Amino acid sequence: MKPTRIESGTDIFREGEPGDRMYVVIEGEVELSVKGKHIATVGKGGIFGEMALIDDKPRSATARVKSDCELTTIDEAKFFELIHQKPSFALEVMKVLVERLRLMDTKT
Amino acid sequence: MKPTRIESGTDIFREGEPGDRMYVVIEGEVELSVKGKHIATVGKGGIFGEMALIDDKPRSATARVKSDCELTTIDEAKFFELIHQKPSFALEVMKVLVERLRLMDTKT
Repeated sequence: MKPTRIESGTDIFREGEPGDRMYVVIEGEVELSVKGKHIATVGKGGIFGEMALIDDKPRSATARVKSDCELTTIDEAKFFELIHQKPSFALEVMKVLVERLRLMDTKT
Repeated sequence: MKPTRIESGTDIFREGEPGDRMYVVIEGEVELSVKGKHIATVGKGGIFGEMALIDDKPRSATARVKSDCELTTIDEAKFFELIHQKPSFALEVMKVLVERLRLMDTKT
């Protein structure tokens, strides 16, 4: 999928919105926040927005472009295709989720 | 794998320990805590201990049997075999991780 350039300060999605795709950061940085509180910064090669695809619930966080970005999207169909065909992709998604959980644990 | 019965009050593992297996609750309940703070209760059909397998880091939480339990274990080799052969298992693990993340988000 063709990468899209997005300017700093743009909200990719907001907490509570429905979500039907995830994102891969090709260039730049995206900040994730919950109720205005910083949760994580996603840089080059990182992914975000995968949670709404996994459990089909609204966005848990707001994603805002921190520095001008290039992003590609993975829609629902592609996401499940990748999970089925590339176990390494499934493991990569799991690693990201675990990383965020451990980050939250340190804040407990 | 044959289920094991474990008495209420027993620690299955403690925060900071190395971990080489995950657990499936066949019967009973297991409580997860971080720094003594309750994180989640895992009941029949639930899993725990998957994080250390995914990122090969120490246990992020302590798992204590809340009511007499029957548990089966999935070791590292079996875990990666399941991820590779059963995409539904990979998705199930992801769902559990996302559920815990959302739970943490509500506490943010």
